[in-house]
Amino acid sequence: MTLKVVGLAEIEAVATRKLVFDAVRTALVAHAEGRTTMPQPIALWFADAEGDCHVKAGHLAGSSHFAVKVASGFYRNAERGLPTNSGLVLVLDATTGVPAAVLADEGWLTAWRTAAAGALVTHALTPADVDEVAVFGTGLQARLQVEWLAELRPLSRVRVCGRRSEAVRQLCADLATAGLKAEPATAAEAAATPCVITATPSTSPLAPAEAFSAAVQHVTGIGTDLPGKAELPPGLFANATTIATDDHDQCLAHGDFGNAVRAGVVGADADVSAGLVLRDGVPDRSGLTIADLTGVGVADAAVATAVFTHLG
Amino acid sequence: MTLKVVGLAEIEAVATRKLVFDAVRTALVAHAEGRTTMPQPIALWFADAEGDCHVKAGHLAGSSHFAVKVASGFYRNAERGLPTNSGLVLVLDATTGVPAAVLADEGWLTAWRTAAAGALVTHALTPADVDEVAVFGTGLQARLQVEWLAELRPLSRVRVCGRRSEAVRQLCADLATAGLKAEPATAAEAAATPCVITATPSTSPLAPAEAFSAAVQHVTGIGTDLPGKAELPPGLFANATTIATDDHDQCLAHGDFGNAVRAGVVGADADVSAGLVLRDGVPDRSGLTIADLTGVGVADAAVATAVFTHLG
Repeated sequence: MTLKVVGLAEIEAVATRKLVFDAVRTALVAHAEGRTTMPQPIALWFADAEGDCHVKAGHLAGSSHFAVKVASGFYRNAERGLPTNSGLVLVLDATTGVPAAVLADEGWLTAWRTAAAGALVTHALTPADVDEVAVFGTGLQARLQVEWLAELRPLSRVRVCGRRSEAVRQLCADLATAGLKAEPATAAEAAATPCVITATPSTSPLAPAEAFSAAVQHVTGIGTDLPGKAELPPGLFANATTIATDDHDQCLAHGDFGNAVRAGVVGADADVSAGLVLRDGVPDRSGLTIADLTGVGVADAAVATAVFTHLG
Repeated sequence: MTLKVVGLAEIEAVATRKLVFDAVRTALVAHAEGRTTMPQPIALWFADAEGDCHVKAGHLAGSSHFAVKVASGFYRNAERGLPTNSGLVLVLDATTGVPAAVLADEGWLTAWRTAAAGALVTHALTPADVDEVAVFGTGLQARLQVEWLAELRPLSRVRVCGRRSEAVRQLCADLATAGLKAEPATAAEAAATPCVITATPSTSPLAPAEAFSAAVQHVTGIGTDLPGKAELPPGLFANATTIATDDHDQCLAHGDFGNAVRAGVVGADADVSAGLVLRDGVPDRSGLTIADLTGVGVADAAVATAVFTHLG
């Protein structure tokens, strides 16, 4: 077995935003069309270390390769001077099952595919003339969601809402470096912005439904990647005319969509596949649109396969 | 991230039978005592390529590392001159979640932990004076089950029963090379041997319950690693006074134990944990004893961690 191990520098040289956007769009559309294999993920918890590890696998029908992704989040790593997230993606031959490469991406491919999925779906669901966006959260993914969205449409103003003012200021500075006009905002100010993105590890709604003003036209939640998490108030879903999910079962199991269904606000069949929105446009934007994205293994598979096939 | 990739030669130098036996015994006992984390495995199927891929993960409480194992079986690989099975084991730090090593074992660690689990449990359940064993199956695992059992007790005679006479002769020759007296046998002859091991990919019972004579004291089935497989006739379980399973839920879902439960022959609570048999001995050997082993991720984790910690 010749197992190629590909380091981050080599991955970064190949994984352009265009490559990641194309792969994730293809994966979401294929998933919506039922042309994917995506088993239930594995999750392990490590209570003492405050850590978790997920394993996601996926295959797009007809693709030469499939992928198994291992992603860890250990929340006391900062005390050790280590990044919270780590992991790798294994690429395997779909004709022989033989491992072809380990993409030692240190969690970046997950970060990028999450950014791409969020940006693609946010862009598709937000009216074209909207150029103001608010983001809840101050971590890496909050920054990437905004930066990648800015690749798809001009953003005149970014509001940043977070619990730690220092982190808010840092994100504003980082976004300024990327050429974006960003400013700190209260939750009320953020929830009065036409386009709202939530990118936090929150386990309870970031604001009550009443806090969201009529000015809000679209909300994308990307933080509910695990059971027990919650970002959007269930009541907000009562105003939605389109609810897009990246995977119906997964969002029902642990997304804000599932939280809203369990709260009795919407029915379990109220969602539409995010891939169909990307392919066909928004079914109904007469009211609020909401995207609930929990992260799908087929996006990991598509990005990893694209990176692998573009390596020298 | 410094990701160590360990090839088969280096693994073989460290993974002695003693190391594997010790790790698997520890894992089975810990699993029986509830001191393990072992989520449901992931399975992917590739219909066109006649392939499947499993991902198993596990952690023993208190262990420094955990493991994620990827194992493929692609049944048309022989046409390409490739082995049917391949895979690798990823070892991760249980305190930080950081990937520590890729054990590029080409499927051998799985083969060895399966051999060790089978041999340990077969040995524990078979009366000490029994030295005749029959094996159904002629593949690698059939050979390993016998060879590893021979490490634990003397075997005076081995009967080999398989569908292809050439493969049966080859296995007898291979076992002779290992110092064992082996001979071809019919199913009736095999099913009249005091200790019977089945190691096949069969999807229906290898012989009817009536074919097993009163001379049979113990049967170990190790082939039902996936839904849809079956080796032992459900009726055989009616004669069993001890039924040992490596994982209750897994054996209920897709082991021969589950097949017997669904056939109404035994109750779903009729089994005892194989780890408890290893720890405490056989609860009741007044009748037939049966072991149903489907392969557990915690054994993978224990072996991989032991190999990793013994590397230079």
